[in-house]
Amino acid sequence: MYSLTVRDHMMIAHSFKGAVFGPAQKLHGATFVVDLSFETEQLDDDNLVVDIGLASEALKAILQPLNYQNLDELPMFEGQNTTTEFLAKYIFDEMAEQMTAGKLGKQATAVKRLTVQLKESHVAWASYSGSLA
Amino acid sequence: MYSLTVRDHMMIAHSFKGAVFGPAQKLHGATFVVDLSFETEQLDDDNLVVDIGLASEALKAILQPLNYQNLDELPMFEGQNTTTEFLAKYIFDEMAEQMTAGKLGKQATAVKRLTVQLKESHVAWASYSGSLA
Amino acid sequence: MYSLTVRDHMMIAHSFKGAVFGPAQKLHGATFVVDLSFETEQLDDDNLVVDIGLASEALKAILQPLNYQNLDELPMFEGQNTTTEFLAKYIFDEMAEQMTAGKLGKQATAVKRLTVQLKESHVAWASYSGSLA
Amino acid sequence: MYSLTVRDHMMIAHSFKGAVFGPAQKLHGATFVVDLSFETEQLDDDNLVVDIGLASEALKAILQPLNYQNLDELPMFEGQNTTTEFLAKYIFDEMAEQMTAGKLGKQATAVKRLTVQLKESHVAWASYSGSLA
Amino acid sequence: MYSLTVRDHMMIAHSFKGAVFGPAQKLHGATFVVDLSFETEQLDDDNLVVDIGLASEALKAILQPLNYQNLDELPMFEGQNTTTEFLAKYIFDEMAEQMTAGKLGKQATAVKRLTVQLKESHVAWASYSGSLA
Amino acid sequence: MYSLTVRDHMMIAHSFKGAVFGPAQKLHGATFVVDLSFETEQLDDDNLVVDIGLASEALKAILQPLNYQNLDELPMFEGQNTTTEFLAKYIFDEMAEQMTAGKLGKQATAVKRLTVQLKESHVAWASYSGSLA
Repeated sequence: MYSLTVRDHMMIAHSFKGAVFGPAQKLHGATFVVDLSFETEQLDDDNLVVDIGLASEALKAILQPLNYQNLDELPMFEGQNTTTEFLAKYIFDEMAEQMTAGKLGKQATAVKRLTVQLKESHVAWASYSGSLA
Repeated sequence: MYSLTVRDHMMIAHSFKGAVFGPAQKLHGATFVVDLSFETEQLDDDNLVVDIGLASEALKAILQPLNYQNLDELPMFEGQNTTTEFLAKYIFDEMAEQMTAGKLGKQATAVKRLTVQLKESHVAWASYSGSLA
Repeated sequence: MYSLTVRDHMMIAHSFKGAVFGPAQKLHGATFVVDLSFETEQLDDDNLVVDIGLASEALKAILQPLNYQNLDELPMFEGQNTTTEFLAKYIFDEMAEQMTAGKLGKQATAVKRLTVQLKESHVAWASYSGSLA
Repeated sequence: MYSLTVRDHMMIAHSFKGAVFGPAQKLHGATFVVDLSFETEQLDDDNLVVDIGLASEALKAILQPLNYQNLDELPMFEGQNTTTEFLAKYIFDEMAEQMTAGKLGKQATAVKRLTVQLKESHVAWASYSGSLA
Repeated sequence: MYSLTVRDHMMIAHSFKGAVFGPAQKLHGATFVVDLSFETEQLDDDNLVVDIGLASEALKAILQPLNYQNLDELPMFEGQNTTTEFLAKYIFDEMAEQMTAGKLGKQATAVKRLTVQLKESHVAWASYSGSLA
Repeated sequence: MYSLTVRDHMMIAHSFKGAVFGPAQKLHGATFVVDLSFETEQLDDDNLVVDIGLASEALKAILQPLNYQNLDELPMFEGQNTTTEFLAKYIFDEMAEQMTAGKLGKQATAVKRLTVQLKESHVAWASYSGSLA
């Protein structure tokens, strides 16, 4: 299995609901360093997993509506705790949709699996990894 | 699959038995930066893999009896070479036990897999990854 | 010149005032990984710059009132853009005060210089460095 | 599953053929930081995945004919775009061959899986992971 | 003293002349991760060292003519070994010129010192640091 | 001012004397990742600060008698707490001596300053920096 990973980041505000979150129930924020990996069984004719330029642009386009936002105010996250693991899955779904929409080119149809990791600090991170239909 | 990882570290002395270890047969030491990952198929009602606070405390509690020790003198490691890979499995087993004992809360019963990575330097690391019964 | 550095972090929300900030004028947030360095010309009798335990506790105590906060609502930052460089200076001043108050022990009187670096992402950071009177 | 990883690097020149590569069609270069992981289900009698000394030497031996080279001029890569993902597979194949040839010792026969990751920058990397027959 | 640092990178080919370079006399390449720091004694009215957006754009503009190039063929480097330390100074000079030309805004006139660090691998880096007239 | 830095590491055991050290009074150990920087005002005719090959070899030679040792048993450290900051100064002195002995070549006479940083974990490090006579 081959993988290609690109990195970007976003800086957001949010708060959590639930006693389990302790002080993080208050409005605070995070820098999320986002690593998105594409996996394929074969390389294409150019010896690529996917076009790294398109991959980076697609990731930036996905993060753009979140970057510099208070996630508590975004309709798509209403009623959700926007935890690191939840956001990993959100970015996974968004990238899967971009790929279906052809934003990563024809080669992207060969991608079998995506993994999204969000680093919230030097001591904690979370990820979501799943197969593509 | 979702994962959540927390990082901690310990500073220990030890020696190895066996010609394969060369100069590491002498008493020396290491800083092990320990990354422990929990994997679940679903998030809980709070959108969490596990409670990160409890996870960090449990990891610290596991490392505490090893930290600032000469591992050669600990009864539990008698007759064992405490290699990086061996210690990864030891920490895996300890965390599995903590989870069975309820130290990570009820949600921890949903954890399907643990991975423990120990970085011994900027150029070498080892891990153990396994399913939970 | 000797230096000793300890690392901690905080996760905050804030917004900026001024066209120069572009999208960062909106309420957003950041994880700041904070590195605080103490410099002395001589080591003490224990061969230390400062007591690393006290240094870590003092740094944590300084970050505690900021961690998990919306900095826009803290009276001490009223009318200020809490930029990365501004916060570096704030932490510098707080640590200098802790040292004057004896929180780092007697040896801390030998510290000639402090440097505070805040990493806001994998591609940007800021610092403040100054002599102690 | 246990893993052991060793890190090395190489500094090479190359160019790519194909419009998808944009400016990278010109002769340019890269530092590849190479992480090679060995996976086994059991540790050997010394509590090792493989002999880390032999593993490091084998990796260095594999990189040596590539290091400080223009990959465009190496016969083994003729007609190939030496992308990061392609090179990960090349190093995978070379290490599998070294292991078959006994260069990593008898224990290496227990290795079930190899993963080779090449970091081309702080924001992009690729890997190849496969089972050993 | 305040500092602000931005990071970018470039991927280049080059060769060196002189027996001291050993195998690096051959055409090879490198990824240089470039950290550029601006230092000021005071923050501006917005609490900034410099506008981080302009700083990042200026650094990208400086690296653009080098990125994806064979430095051996660039007229400006004729007769020069483009070592890591030499390139640090080159980028320093270019940024100083951009600042004089007003590309970083009026606040940039307060910058007292620039430091440019180029990381060529995980085990080696070089820098140039100098005062601005 | 130009600088060139090389990185290596060592894995040692030691213990400390003095109540300030708490649990670190017991025999424990550390991996020290060592970064050694050379500073010059001018580059040599090859555009180098120092020969990076000789610099790396000299650093390795200095660490070799410490690596895989219990520092408590080394005569040269008798009666000393081998703290991170103390070891930084020890390596500084050893490198200064190697340079005086000509081990880094003639160019090394131009080196004005050395800085030695030892990272003991992902959250703590120390350094010694000094001028050369």
